[in-house]
Amino acid sequence: MLITPGPLLATVHTPDQLRHLSKEQLPQLCDELRQFIIDVVSVYGGHFGASLGVVELTAALHYVFNTPDDQLIWDVGHQAYGHKILTGRRDNFHTNRFYGGLSGFPKRKESPYDAFGVGHSSTSISAALGMAVASQLQGNPTRNHIAVIGDGSMTAGLAFEGMNHAGATDANMLIVLNDNCMSIDPNVGALREYLTDITTSPTYNKVKDEVWNLLGKFSTFGKSAQEIVSKVENAIKSSVLSQSNLFESLHLRYFGPIDGHDVDRLVDVLADLKTIPGPKILHVLTVKGKGYGPAEKDQTKWHAPGLFDKLTGEIKKKTYLTPQPPKYQDVFGHTLVELAEQNPRIVGVTPAMPSGSSMNIMMKAMPDRAFDVGIAEQHAVTFSAGMATRGEVVFCNIYSTFMQRAYDQVIHDVCIQELPVIFCLDRAGFAGADGPTHHGAYDLAYMRCVPNMIVAAPMNEQELRNMMYTAASATVQQGKQAFTIRYPRGEGVMPNWRTPLEELPIGKARLVQDGEDVAILTIGHIGNYATQALGTLAKEGIRPAHIDMRYVKPLDEAMLHQVFQRFDRVLTVEDGCLQGGFGSAVLEFMVDHGYSARVKRLGIPDAIIEHGEQLELQRECGFDPQGIADAVRHLLYANQKVSV
Amino acid sequence: MLITPGPLLATVHTPDQLRHLSKEQLPQLCDELRQFIIDVVSVYGGHFGASLGVVELTAALHYVFNTPDDQLIWDVGHQAYGHKILTGRRDNFHTNRFYGGLSGFPKRKESPYDAFGVGHSSTSISAALGMAVASQLQGNPTRNHIAVIGDGSMTAGLAFEGMNHAGATDANMLIVLNDNCMSIDPNVGALREYLTDITTSPTYNKVKDEVWNLLGKFSTFGKSAQEIVSKVENAIKSSVLSQSNLFESLHLRYFGPIDGHDVDRLVDVLADLKTIPGPKILHVLTVKGKGYGPAEKDQTKWHAPGLFDKLTGEIKKKTYLTPQPPKYQDVFGHTLVELAEQNPRIVGVTPAMPSGSSMNIMMKAMPDRAFDVGIAEQHAVTFSAGMATRGEVVFCNIYSTFMQRAYDQVIHDVCIQELPVIFCLDRAGFAGADGPTHHGAYDLAYMRCVPNMIVAAPMNEQELRNMMYTAASATVQQGKQAFTIRYPRGEGVMPNWRTPLEELPIGKARLVQDGEDVAILTIGHIGNYATQALGTLAKEGIRPAHIDMRYVKPLDEAMLHQVFQRFDRVLTVEDGCLQGGFGSAVLEFMVDHGYSARVKRLGIPDAIIEHGEQLELQRECGFDPQGIADAVRHLLYANQKVSV
Repeated sequence: MLITPGPLLATVHTPDQLRHLSKEQLPQLCDELRQFIIDVVSVYGGHFGASLGVVELTAALHYVFNTPDDQLIWDVGHQAYGHKILTGRRDNFHTNRFYGGLSGFPKRKESPYDAFGVGHSSTSISAALGMAVASQLQGNPTRNHIAVIGDGSMTAGLAFEGMNHAGATDANMLIVLNDNCMSIDPNVGALREYLTDITTSPTYNKVKDEVWNLLGKFSTFGKSAQEIVSKVENAIKSSVLSQSNLFESLHLRYFGPIDGHDVDRLVDVLADLKTIPGPKILHVLTVKGKGYGPAEKDQTKWHAPGLFDKLTGEIKKKTYLTPQPPKYQDVFGHTLVELAEQNPRIVGVTPAMPSGSSMNIMMKAMPDRAFDVGIAEQHAVTFSAGMATRGEVVFCNIYSTFMQRAYDQVIHDVCIQELPVIFCLDRAGFAGADGPTHHGAYDLAYMRCVPNMIVAAPMNEQELRNMMYTAASATVQQGKQAFTIRYPRGEGVMPNWRTPLEELPIGKARLVQDGEDVAILTIGHIGNYATQALGTLAKEGIRPAHIDMRYVKPLDEAMLHQVFQRFDRVLTVEDGCLQGGFGSAVLEFMVDHGYSARVKRLGIPDAIIEHGEQLELQRECGFDPQGIADAVRHLLYANQKVSV
Repeated sequence: MLITPGPLLATVHTPDQLRHLSKEQLPQLCDELRQFIIDVVSVYGGHFGASLGVVELTAALHYVFNTPDDQLIWDVGHQAYGHKILTGRRDNFHTNRFYGGLSGFPKRKESPYDAFGVGHSSTSISAALGMAVASQLQGNPTRNHIAVIGDGSMTAGLAFEGMNHAGATDANMLIVLNDNCMSIDPNVGALREYLTDITTSPTYNKVKDEVWNLLGKFSTFGKSAQEIVSKVENAIKSSVLSQSNLFESLHLRYFGPIDGHDVDRLVDVLADLKTIPGPKILHVLTVKGKGYGPAEKDQTKWHAPGLFDKLTGEIKKKTYLTPQPPKYQDVFGHTLVELAEQNPRIVGVTPAMPSGSSMNIMMKAMPDRAFDVGIAEQHAVTFSAGMATRGEVVFCNIYSTFMQRAYDQVIHDVCIQELPVIFCLDRAGFAGADGPTHHGAYDLAYMRCVPNMIVAAPMNEQELRNMMYTAASATVQQGKQAFTIRYPRGEGVMPNWRTPLEELPIGKARLVQDGEDVAILTIGHIGNYATQALGTLAKEGIRPAHIDMRYVKPLDEAMLHQVFQRFDRVLTVEDGCLQGGFGSAVLEFMVDHGYSARVKRLGIPDAIIEHGEQLELQRECGFDPQGIADAVRHLLYANQKVSV
């Protein structure tokens, strides 16, 4: 289904064409751009509220600045749909987030207008500063470099580090603070409160004016009064007002706040700012979901609503006749509350992903014991470590891909100190449509090389519940090891998932099915693919054994001794990187113990895997059910020489 | 040599005893504490300036607060010598930083007074907040939690994330901002400038007072003037002054600045702050090296001066009759300038380690092209990525252990985008006396699992130079891969190190010595130990082959095919973690290609290795020259069964 753009939008294929419109035409263009986004996303899905909120800002930025020579960087980037549509990708936009189609985020390979690839938050200021400094070095100090960053992204330390450096330079860059009070969930923290303070009356600028006006009135009181006024003014000016804004404290010239939906005003202000050199910040107020009623009302739900009826605002849900398996996320959320009801020392921590991780279930049930710390993964981990020193049993839930940002804190603040923090890594393996920036591909490798760390992955809902129960148990909590549980985005396999809780001995695997000739060792949910493969192979008379290893670290050595004593053909399967991952751990065991077998490792190869459905990507990498079956056949029949 | 404490200090073994002193005795105690630190460090070495700067603060904190029940967290922790001496460790203090002795940093295992283990910067606020929240949950909301953090550490994003969360809570915590204008090198960035602004006249508080005083004078002008004054006051109070401080913007009550060397005043102020609940910050001005003239004058040099004559201030240097090999750091620094002189696109980036990394050589020679971005590893990497998008050839030098803090930026901003940033990881392998927080143990594992990443390690100065030359070459820069070069702290092996520059083909190893029976594969400087081992073994008639692999990724596959075709006994040696590291990469190659050999991997085991001389730690882990020789003998003679 091809979406038809409005008549004016239809004429604009590039920012150059946009810049040939009259300023008076921009409101119509914005309306048509907004409608086009609604039309496409309602039918094809994708992120929604964020892009609607920056329609006017997007048009104004391309109208005023000379993109792509001027460098425009969208922080996170799920708000960049309008940008993509205006920069030559309108006709392909229906392929957005589909396998082989456009990326849901700006991406350098995709367009010269995408100055910096994004996905994770808070990178834009540092990147823009790097570009601005490069422009200075290359003799082009007046080129413009614009970072568009949300108030949610501002809470991450990286953004602060970027501002701290930028403010000490004269690099020509503009930070546009897109303030909509939201991350995916409502934004939190002191900075959020501060932004609210300066945008509610009396605003910072209003006060400035007010004070000057009031002081001006003293002129009628004669000379000595005027002298005092002058001293007051100087004192205030010299040291208070000049630093009275957080951003100006960091030597960034602050402008705003202004209405981010008034495209006319935006164009004027941006044109003015273009003439002001050096680092500066423009505070723009926007509404996430702007122009689409239901999305304005429930912004979290409409962050990425899936398909919907654009007229009624009804979000389309699949219906099933039989009970379906729950999402791992929901199993996590409900089980956490179940455990916390039994143990008052259990607390939960999420960095800005309460709804995505289902930590919101605990936040609702036990608001005092579940913490959304904002987009701040580093802090989330060290804060958890601090609580753990005082005997709290901390479930710190961070998406696998975002845990990369707290790696040092995991090593330095948790594992070196032998603190039993529990890490739940959501969206491990392929993230799906979000693509390479969001795949949880490296966690098994980067976690298992850290001492004092247990690494587990459940094959189903029951194992997730039991791993959480095990991690919170007194034995583990009195020990010296952190406990990582990683699981994928989406549904498990057990419609009846509220199983009784029981401890899973640490470092013990589970024999799913005994067999012959080949042993398949799997870790995590992907083990269900092996089960499917076994079904196929059974019809051919091939009956491999299948072991759900449960723990990557410590490995079940007793089980592995049996495996290598009984089998000379072994297949390992993981939805993580092949370099240094689960399969490598198995190889280390094998060689360290003097075994030799033909081992095939399936997993994510040493390449950036793009976006698509999880199963599409797994097929591409050869560890979908068919890939697993093929690998078993290959191990059995291929005339591969094993030299000794 | 036992150091004798002064008479008053001799009576104080615990903070309890300290708290029984009269307030009038504190200056004498501080003098004796300072002298004790000077006495010990001059003879035994260690960090110096930072601890001298907080002598009075240390005494005042333990005097006022009820440690260890009140939680005291030292950020970074190399300023905590006074704290250690006052908390029961005076008699052991001469073992500080020696193998088996006290740690140079606070460490939970060592003392209940060490509330949180540290080493890396900027963790204290998050940790203190975690403890304070735990105290609230546990029904003890008035317990005190104190984070002592330097102005240098404040620039790291983690500190900002912690403040952003703290300011939105009512947790009882005090942040003591120890402002001495220094990291190891002088501190940089906008925050630094801001702190200078508010500590120079007219200060923030002075202005506040001044404005109120001046406005008060209007009372003589009659009622209408007073009304205007009242409006002015309200306007200013409500919205300007209440936010006029960066920290107050983040809802932290700000106090200070006060003189950090006036112990009497410190005690009074801290006692007052103890009665004020909630999150608050006290700004304390100190001088690094305070009380020891030479250290006050050259603070970078005296950060950790080595042994010195405490009377003359002369730093003791070893003298040699023959030319010695240079430090890898200096080879890096000089070679970078050499390369940059040839290629105007080369730039350098360091996060607050100009002298430690020798980036200061380029900063001096080409101040416009070398950037100290402050303690901000994340920003350092993304800033580098931004420059790389514009064609700059970026050498981003970060200690291996600190690169853990920028892992996401390496993956997300550099490698996914195929940007050819060059990472030089200093202090790879064992850091030595700094201990486990600073060991560069994990880099080979966490870097080699990332796609689009070349990973190399030089065996000597010439290889370091050539790897840098290779990384900056046009071929690599026009490619799509980042380039990591990791090397250890300290001296190489080539007194005549200024060798001609030549490209080292990527993924090509070097046969150091051919041999028989056993192949030794080494990576990096540690290969020199293999050379030594070969010398020993030759006397026994054992002649293994030795290959300097140079690249962990990509591996030299042609070489490895030869190795596994010719040898059935292989030894791998690395100064990195055994889980997922270089040896594992070799195993992956071996098994993927259907080879089978008896392989022994030497490296850092799955444990936290404490502090000590590098060689002591390498011996402990069995990969010193003798350990390598033993492993070869074992491979040759042990009757180890290889099952097939």
